[in-house]
Amino acid sequence: MKPNFSLRLRIFNLNCWGIPYLSKHRGDRVKRLGDFLNMESFDLALLEEVWSEQDFQYLRQKLLPTYPAAHYFRSGVIGSGLCVFSKHPIQEFTQHVYTLNGYPYMIHHGDWFCGKAVGLLVLHLSGLVLNAYVTHLHAEYNRQKDIYLAHRVAQAWELAQFIHHTSKKADVVLLCGDLNLHPKDLGCRLLKEWTGLHDAYLETRDFKGSEEGCTMVPENCYVNQRELEPFPFGIRIDYVLYKAVSGFYISCKTLRTTTGHDPHSGTPLSDHEALMATLCVRHSPPQHTHSPTHGGPAERSRLISVLKEAWAELDLGMAQARWWATFAGYVIGLGLLLLALLCALAAGGGVREVAIMLWTPSVGLLLGAGAVYLFHMQEAKGLSRARAELQHMLRRAREAHNLDPESQAALFLGQQEGDRSEEQ
Amino acid sequence: MKPNFSLRLRIFNLNCWGIPYLSKHRGDRVKRLGDFLNMESFDLALLEEVWSEQDFQYLRQKLLPTYPAAHYFRSGVIGSGLCVFSKHPIQEFTQHVYTLNGYPYMIHHGDWFCGKAVGLLVLHLSGLVLNAYVTHLHAEYNRQKDIYLAHRVAQAWELAQFIHHTSKKADVVLLCGDLNLHPKDLGCRLLKEWTGLHDAYLETRDFKGSEEGCTMVPENCYVNQRELEPFPFGIRIDYVLYKAVSGFYISCKTLRTTTGHDPHSGTPLSDHEALMATLCVRHSPPQHTHSPTHGGPAERSRLISVLKEAWAELDLGMAQARWWATFAGYVIGLGLLLLALLCALAAGGGVREVAIMLWTPSVGLLLGAGAVYLFHMQEAKGLSRARAELQHMLRRAREAHNLDPESQAALFLGQQEGDRSEEQ
Repeated sequence: MKPNFSLRLRIFNLNCWGIPYLSKHRGDRVKRLGDFLNMESFDLALLEEVWSEQDFQYLRQKLLPTYPAAHYFRSGVIGSGLCVFSKHPIQEFTQHVYTLNGYPYMIHHGDWFCGKAVGLLVLHLSGLVLNAYVTHLHAEYNRQKDIYLAHRVAQAWELAQFIHHTSKKADVVLLCGDLNLHPKDLGCRLLKEWTGLHDAYLETRDFKGSEEGCTMVPENCYVNQRELEPFPFGIRIDYVLYKAVSGFYISCKTLRTTTGHDPHSGTPLSDHEALMATLCVRHSPPQHTHSPTHGGPAERSRLISVLKEAWAELDLGMAQARWWATFAGYVIGLGLLLLALLCALAAGGGVREVAIMLWTPSVGLLLGAGAVYLFHMQEAKGLSRARAELQHMLRRAREAHNLDPESQAALFLGQQEGDRSEEQ
Repeated sequence: MKPNFSLRLRIFNLNCWGIPYLSKHRGDRVKRLGDFLNMESFDLALLEEVWSEQDFQYLRQKLLPTYPAAHYFRSGVIGSGLCVFSKHPIQEFTQHVYTLNGYPYMIHHGDWFCGKAVGLLVLHLSGLVLNAYVTHLHAEYNRQKDIYLAHRVAQAWELAQFIHHTSKKADVVLLCGDLNLHPKDLGCRLLKEWTGLHDAYLETRDFKGSEEGCTMVPENCYVNQRELEPFPFGIRIDYVLYKAVSGFYISCKTLRTTTGHDPHSGTPLSDHEALMATLCVRHSPPQHTHSPTHGGPAERSRLISVLKEAWAELDLGMAQARWWATFAGYVIGLGLLLLALLCALAAGGGVREVAIMLWTPSVGLLLGAGAVYLFHMQEAKGLSRARAELQHMLRRAREAHNLDPESQAALFLGQQEGDRSEEQ
């Protein structure tokens, strides 16, 4: 690789809102998306919520001349909804399906059936190894009372760990997707602190698009306006994140979003806004590479604080999962008693017909409670796994912090200030 | 690191057969295992089938002075059964739960409830990065008619991919565990060809233990003798596999197995035999590192052939999964019809009581068929995902093969020979 090496990457990301039978104007939107991607000829187009494999196959055919490489990540009952189109050959791909992804009995939310995942592509571009990740985390249906918070935090942690462990030899790491996390949400901070990824919107000097970079905006006719009421400009939950290892420097030259219309001011391509980033990678003198537990004292303090916060959240989630498993256990016991009683009544005559009629619901209750028990036992195991990993990393970060003289000084000054404020 | 760097690693691996209430003499065996591990003071002890977390906690307490670091990998409803004890600090750990792992309705086999997984530990030993993996694949209950074959092949592929993608910056890779695969089984060949891992039993010059390195032997009093009838010496399904990257050389100095008794000739520690390996890592001149698609022509030919074989097996598995999903779909239709008929009969009088009595089984049938449908849809997606990854790698290996003049010559000679043998 030449020392004046420089690479420009044009990236497209969109949550396509492609739910068969439910999403409005799906066919037309997919067609227009294909036209747009063909016209713009990005290096990489990363899409989420392409739930129908037919839509992917349609796009694949349509985009073949411009994007010879493509992949659809299959998982769960329905699919992950993730797919990619690339102008450059894909060397390798794989995926990781999140251990926790909502509840099967929340059928109206449907996330559990999708098998939400993170997909990884390895590309070799002019001798540079690019690991590109695309993901979609569990949706947030009620911000005030979010029953999926622990799952989303666990997903953010698994995502961060997957990136951390699979990108150790990559020169450049790129993550695009719908994180269903606001920029200051715990999951988003955890992901950024653990992986060292930078947010294109915060880094670029040339941004054009929706106010505050929002990717769900009230101007979009497909958006549920009531849900966006507390956020006058909309919300920013779709991201382009990146980092380069030592020896390379990556920056975001330009970032564009659509603004509630399609790029040519027609009906929007989706209920989310598209992100279009131009990244520039070039050689740089070797320097300190991001390592989660070996940054400066300030970095480490932030990491320790976010790890603690995530740990506490997962702990709450675990307590809840165990409560449900115990509750289901009691219901199983009661259901068995009820069934025995009904059998006795049916055999004894008298209320025989009523007893027989009640069999169906009581057997249903028993089976349902059994399934709920198994599910929440599994949930507790999944949360406990993520919590153990977090706890280990928290311990290591604290050890590194305690060993570092700079941190010791900062801690000492912090304590002195604390003492002073207590005295006042 | 000094150029005369050399590191000796003593490794222990055992499938502990620790099923609460079912495995014989569990408490006593766990106690003796703890005593043995304490006495031998291995660098790393990797255990499978420690199903009870209490057993892990007991061992953790007992082994704390000799093995200060330990971790239990949690997953599924019951757990993964995997745990590790290390003399050296564990830098990082994570795990990957296999997408496919049997069927929930095969309750008597129980694998589905375990959440079989691969655990990863990252250790830093004298400046050397060691990635140690421990795993346990789906059991084989009937070798003649193995309904889990596609799942085990998919697991072997996911295991190989997980190692491939997470070990890119490791100096040494170690994999221990119960693969439930004989040495020449498809899954075992796939794993070795894709990762470049070497088999300690085949590599070492100093082996002492059971005949042919078997890890389930008829001499073991806990082994089901009938299952081992076709194999007079037993079977070899537990492995110590390893590799080093360029700049390092790893060899297996000694390999020992127990031989149906505990190491001091008492009752065995488990129904499996323990593996004890002494590995030696030292510096070596940088040389060609294993890359799945960039080996020599012979290596690539073997890889292509095993990828093709695995692809065909997954394809068969997919067809079967789809057949079951379609069948369940028909049963759902029939169940709905039956339920409608029963409602009509119940309303009409006459056979009212019989109709009501049949509600329970018909609702059960409907729900059961629904669950089977969802499960096999998910199975088909999982198999299809692994097949797509295999297919991509097969294409890339073939491309590399076609571009290589040596392979071309080999292919040409092979064809000539083929032509000659056809002529004869």
